Amino acid sequence: MSKPSLPQGTRDFGPAVVRKRNYILQTIRRVFELYGYEPLETPAMENMETLLGKYGDEGDKLIFKILNNGLSDAKNIEKGKAAFENVLAGKNDKNLTERALRYDLTIPFARYVAMNHGQLALPFKRYQIQPVWRADRPQKGRYREFYQCDADVVGSKSLINEVELCIIYATVFEQLGIDVTIKINNRKILGALAEVAGATDKFTAITVAIDKLDKIGMEKVKEELAANGLQPEQIAIVESYISISGTVSEKLQALQQLIGESESGKTGLQELQYVTGSFVQFTGKQNLELDTTLARGLNYYTGCIFEIKANNVQMGSIGGGGRYDDLTGLFGVPNVPGVGISFGVDRIYDVLEELQAFPAFTSSSTRVLFFNLGEQESAAAFTQMQLLRKAGISSELYHENAKFDKQFKYAEKKQIAYIVIIGTQELTNGVANVKNLTTGEQVTVSFNELANYFTRL
Amino acid sequence: MSKPSLPQGTRDFGPAVVRKRNYILQTIRRVFELYGYEPLETPAMENMETLLGKYGDEGDKLIFKILNNGLSDAKNIEKGKAAFENVLAGKNDKNLTERALRYDLTIPFARYVAMNHGQLALPFKRYQIQPVWRADRPQKGRYREFYQCDADVVGSKSLINEVELCIIYATVFEQLGIDVTIKINNRKILGALAEVAGATDKFTAITVAIDKLDKIGMEKVKEELAANGLQPEQIAIVESYISISGTVSEKLQALQQLIGESESGKTGLQELQYVTGSFVQFTGKQNLELDTTLARGLNYYTGCIFEIKANNVQMGSIGGGGRYDDLTGLFGVPNVPGVGISFGVDRIYDVLEELQAFPAFTSSSTRVLFFNLGEQESAAAFTQMQLLRKAGISSELYHENAKFDKQFKYAEKKQIAYIVIIGTQELTNGVANVKNLTTGEQVTVSFNELANYFTRL
Repeated sequence: MSKPSLPQGTRDFGPAVVRKRNYILQTIRRVFELYGYEPLETPAMENMETLLGKYGDEGDKLIFKILNNGLSDAKNIEKGKAAFENVLAGKNDKNLTERALRYDLTIPFARYVAMNHGQLALPFKRYQIQPVWRADRPQKGRYREFYQCDADVVGSKSLINEVELCIIYATVFEQLGIDVTIKINNRKILGALAEVAGATDKFTAITVAIDKLDKIGMEKVKEELAANGLQPEQIAIVESYISISGTVSEKLQALQQLIGESESGKTGLQELQYVTGSFVQFTGKQNLELDTTLARGLNYYTGCIFEIKANNVQMGSIGGGGRYDDLTGLFGVPNVPGVGISFGVDRIYDVLEELQAFPAFTSSSTRVLFFNLGEQESAAAFTQMQLLRKAGISSELYHENAKFDKQFKYAEKKQIAYIVIIGTQELTNGVANVKNLTTGEQVTVSFNELANYFTRL
Repeated sequence: MSKPSLPQGTRDFGPAVVRKRNYILQTIRRVFELYGYEPLETPAMENMETLLGKYGDEGDKLIFKILNNGLSDAKNIEKGKAAFENVLAGKNDKNLTERALRYDLTIPFARYVAMNHGQLALPFKRYQIQPVWRADRPQKGRYREFYQCDADVVGSKSLINEVELCIIYATVFEQLGIDVTIKINNRKILGALAEVAGATDKFTAITVAIDKLDKIGMEKVKEELAANGLQPEQIAIVESYISISGTVSEKLQALQQLIGESESGKTGLQELQYVTGSFVQFTGKQNLELDTTLARGLNYYTGCIFEIKANNVQMGSIGGGGRYDDLTGLFGVPNVPGVGISFGVDRIYDVLEELQAFPAFTSSSTRVLFFNLGEQESAAAFTQMQLLRKAGISSELYHENAKFDKQFKYAEKKQIAYIVIIGTQELTNGVANVKNLTTGEQVTVSFNELANYFTRL
């Protein structure tokens, strides 16, 4: 018998971790729902053709494919052999793998909208919290199975959505106790920059270079732009763009001067003005920051883009998103614009651990352990325990009449806050001894009062 | 562009369905936690060797295997070819498929316990609610991806666990509003029956035949027993066993006479006596029924076994479970006994639909739609809406200043209960018109009072 193990890059989530993860996910879910976003769940498996070609060549290679069943059936053998030759040649073949595991939540969402758009009430606001799988090389913080947590609204061009998504970010992180900066920019501004620099054909090269500023610094960005064929005067324009600083309104003014003549620039500025202005108006908060160097890699973004940075922790972005023009065109349904955000659940978890900001209730699911001190005693304990459970207090009776010490150790190991002792003496007197394992405090409470005692705590 | 589709046997869960499913799962989860069960989550993928050989030959064929990535890399080609030959010959080969999708929750749980038993506080009470995948032929009510919902306690032989699991069943179904019978029996009793009939070597044949009684009737059961080589007098004993009827205590008495001399029978009777007696003592409920014909197919059960039947609906069992002696022996860790139950989530969903017993709150996530009647009006609406959201009331502002009719239709389609109208007149007066879309009732409420108004509803 070989020792059992887990596939590389996957994780078990034991009770302590699940409780903390659920705390994060429940917080996010509750806020999504307050804002009218509705839950969607799609299957782990999608047909190969739904996924292939959506994530670039590199992405295609990282999709986990599911071997067709029944390959050894006589009728399938010849087809299977031919298909396997294709796979060895680096191609995909339905006769070997008809299905694959979900690689993200966006494409399944697009597939769902395309399949159901006749029935959906538009705008359709959905959230989705499910695992995805990628055959990436596992490393610290990168897993082959991980959760994505997305909210999107499709079928609406209204900027009210952008404002609300920013407020959702602010609300979730406030509730989680994480101090964040919500960075915003607009792809139309980046487009206008390329235009003003006379380099619209180099739009992607410019955004890619700007995107790296944080990591490589201004000089390297300029080198990269030069390497991509930008002239010194063009690079100077990009540099002056990157160097814009000050408050939101100072930045908007500077942008107005630099790219305000461009049509795309004008629209981008109006959008940013509206979203940043409304955010302050409706929340009174100051943590939405216009960051002209925010670019977001994905080419499908067309309007406002967002990214979340935790202020007091060294950590990459813990959320991001943006507006896109066309979600479902790939599936034959054109003109479905939308805007969405996502939360980086694994990183948020790490931030909360580092800040020691998980609330105490996540540390244990059982609040009260009743000691088991014999048949009659434990029958009385059981009766009391049922009253506590009825009052919503999670409780356990130790499973057997073991030594005190053993029962104590169990309570400690499970981080149970209270123990209740009902021995012969207590049974006769109709009382229970309650001990707070954190403070060591001990009180005697009558059976009649026990459930109330814990409810009041 | 071919029309997008879903893999056979898989489902999208749209918002209305997810809300109803979450209502079921949350109810179960809350009760599990009240009883000290803790959440566990394992990865969708397991190593092939963790799963293979655990579900019988038929089961092995129904496991979804994941194709290794990088098969077309030069270094893998030869190994891959040899592996594919093995697969065509009906074997499994790690060089083609190292990993596979979870087939149930029990084996991953056993693998988890085996890997972590040094760290776990025993007894370990865990619950797990996750999807599993099986390459079964899809048909009505049978899916290739479906959720299992299990609670098990391992590392304890105490019958307190059996009692609590029965109470968990009773509590969950009471909360869901489903009238159920909890059937209980004991594999030791079935063993004693085989012993008393002088057919211990035919134990499995006897349990399998008895298990079919519901479907095929007594005569066919007797035929099957005869076909398995049981003599008429042996069959007569099985028939008298099956025919036992009456209240729990009458049945226990009849069993005492029939199999009470057997050691295994004695223990089985004591266990049933304790569990059924304690259930009545601690719940006052009468819906735990001793069903001597309950056998449960799985051979690993060794003590009490359970099955749940909904009383007012035609439907197979909606839950089941039992005690086993050895969870982790397969993974090299012996002597971990346990007992567990599971809930059939898909069937429970169907039962609730048939009984029309889903609570009203599952029908929509948004309670209040604010109409959008222009820039100033919608700014006022937005301010009010934020107050409602702060008070925990899920609300939306229609995304654009559209015709009344269009906004109404959106509210109707999303089954939103209330609309709030703030037009020019209302804006001047600082009031909102609130309309209940179910009753048609309309009231005017001042801005100051609006959040309170909805909180009080």
